Amino acid sequence: MSELELAGQLDDLIERIGRPEVKWRRAAEERLDSLTKPAGSLGRLEELAIRLGGIQATEKPSVDRKAVVVMVGDHGVVRHGVSAYPSEVTAQMVMNFLNGGAAINVLAAQAGARISVIDMGVVADLPNHPDLVDRKIAKGTADLASGPAMSRAEALESVLAGSRQAMLEVEAGVDLLVAGDMGIGNSTSATAIISGISGAPAAGMTGPGTGLNEADVRRKAALIEDSMRRLRPDPEDPLDVLSKVGGFEIGGIAGLCLGAAARRTAIVVDGVISAAGALLAATMAPSCVEYMFAGHRSVEPAQAIALERLGLKPILDLEMRLGEGTGAVLASMVLEAACRICSRMATFEEAQVSKRHS
Amino acid sequence: MSELELAGQLDDLIERIGRPEVKWRRAAEERLDSLTKPAGSLGRLEELAIRLGGIQATEKPSVDRKAVVVMVGDHGVVRHGVSAYPSEVTAQMVMNFLNGGAAINVLAAQAGARISVIDMGVVADLPNHPDLVDRKIAKGTADLASGPAMSRAEALESVLAGSRQAMLEVEAGVDLLVAGDMGIGNSTSATAIISGISGAPAAGMTGPGTGLNEADVRRKAALIEDSMRRLRPDPEDPLDVLSKVGGFEIGGIAGLCLGAAARRTAIVVDGVISAAGALLAATMAPSCVEYMFAGHRSVEPAQAIALERLGLKPILDLEMRLGEGTGAVLASMVLEAACRICSRMATFEEAQVSKRHS
Repeated sequence: MSELELAGQLDDLIERIGRPEVKWRRAAEERLDSLTKPAGSLGRLEELAIRLGGIQATEKPSVDRKAVVVMVGDHGVVRHGVSAYPSEVTAQMVMNFLNGGAAINVLAAQAGARISVIDMGVVADLPNHPDLVDRKIAKGTADLASGPAMSRAEALESVLAGSRQAMLEVEAGVDLLVAGDMGIGNSTSATAIISGISGAPAAGMTGPGTGLNEADVRRKAALIEDSMRRLRPDPEDPLDVLSKVGGFEIGGIAGLCLGAAARRTAIVVDGVISAAGALLAATMAPSCVEYMFAGHRSVEPAQAIALERLGLKPILDLEMRLGEGTGAVLASMVLEAACRICSRMATFEEAQVSKRHS
Repeated sequence: MSELELAGQLDDLIERIGRPEVKWRRAAEERLDSLTKPAGSLGRLEELAIRLGGIQATEKPSVDRKAVVVMVGDHGVVRHGVSAYPSEVTAQMVMNFLNGGAAINVLAAQAGARISVIDMGVVADLPNHPDLVDRKIAKGTADLASGPAMSRAEALESVLAGSRQAMLEVEAGVDLLVAGDMGIGNSTSATAIISGISGAPAAGMTGPGTGLNEADVRRKAALIEDSMRRLRPDPEDPLDVLSKVGGFEIGGIAGLCLGAAARRTAIVVDGVISAAGALLAATMAPSCVEYMFAGHRSVEPAQAIALERLGLKPILDLEMRLGEGTGAVLASMVLEAACRICSRMATFEEAQVSKRHS
């Protein structure tokens, strides 16, 4: 498909994004105030329930059917030593996901979430597996330190593939999407994207990723700053940013966010990779933020900058920095708690409990 | 039983409290480092798993069998208008707990936790029910604003009753206790206890409880300060503090903490009421803090002071202020996640994933 046709498809997708209805937020709030607890005493649980009520157009939202979508891709930039781990770990971790041994498998099982693993651009050939979806755009991105990471057409393809995955999940009955990621080198790419969109310098927001030492973090920051100076991504043009500093899986997450919003479905954003994807999506279509929940505060400093720009306050703050969707899927249990409160608690009337002094 | 005999029983209980073993903390940490994730990347989940490993003397801790113990009591001080709700709500909420309609029922069900409701001193007569344990010490405390809330013997009885409940739960197979509370007026009592033990003035730490307005919060704070000046509880003597500013259910929670520690069982502390009980317990037996987890940061300011003195950092911060054990039981899902990580993730060796560059 031509770049023009792909761009047309993305425009169509963005046009389909509507806003959650205020009247249903109000209905959820009224419901919460009728339940046997002091009004507002469940704090952010109530705020989350009200937002979900608006998104799902009901006073009793539900997130019983959750899917973690783990977007996976490799990064040419790893040749510069920006990660503590070798590149082959990306494919090895895909096998670990498929065999159920990774952190995301354990936490998703606890939360009652299904996992789909999407090969957006892994270098290695991967086997057929019912939980693995092949959307490989290329065998890893090009090295962003020596040229753009991908073409504009590939950037468009990655976003559209992500949005298609969101549609498929929603059609299969999912009512909460959880954005996950895997890709050795991808915190370099995510930090560059967040720097590119926000205009804040990379030096102040580059973190250790999977565990670089201080000297290596400084080298990683310098590499990102040098690349940004050379590539000059246009902050007003998220596809330009994505294509220059890349990440097929980050484009995939951006698409997942857009697709979720187009289908009026809530999505939980995870750490820095996921936040970079969410920020790309929000730059393309600001109202898609209304369908997003920030699962947790990562220790990667760029994530805080992205969440601030998105206007999202994290649900959890557990000093996590693993990715895969782990923080987001943990937070999905809090979202489920918020929903259960709306649908399962007794009202003052039902329980014959006296109301407060007027 | 005489006050002397009760005091002897409490001394015996405190003597039985040992400390978690460092070698098992190390074993849990080594196990975590062998799993397919960058070392330490699960942040506080790993810290929680390591603490639980030490408490349970295993590298694979488990909190599958959880019990919420909701300690309930009435407060003579309510006659001064310190609560937004009438006193009869205490008993009405007990019925709501037994009928499954309260927030704690909904959240405990999600967490897979059983609920026991303990009548430590409700004014009303309560019916027989398999989930309700009758430990009624008196029909509510005396008014702390016009005299001590209870006798020293009653304070001892409430603590011992709480510790017995912990023992019963552990003998029934529970591996995680969750401290809950109900009692109209009990944030007044809890704030007075925290002020009494910490020496910090009540004015700066008095909160709205179930929802007082600003003027009423000021009146509540003044009432606590006046009572403290008159009663002069001895900060070195937690039973003196408990007997003077009361709360049978707060004594019960203190006992629950001591009993949990004596049986090497982890306990999750909830909001301000629960934190007051935990602070009493820690003042009697400092090492019992090693078995405690702070479930969440409440919006009640006195809770932060108590947690700081306990040296506990809350797991969640969701601006909750309901009590019943709601924040603690939500946090128990995070503790369960920490345990599942230890026991269910694959090691680098098992999953054949390459280790980091050395």
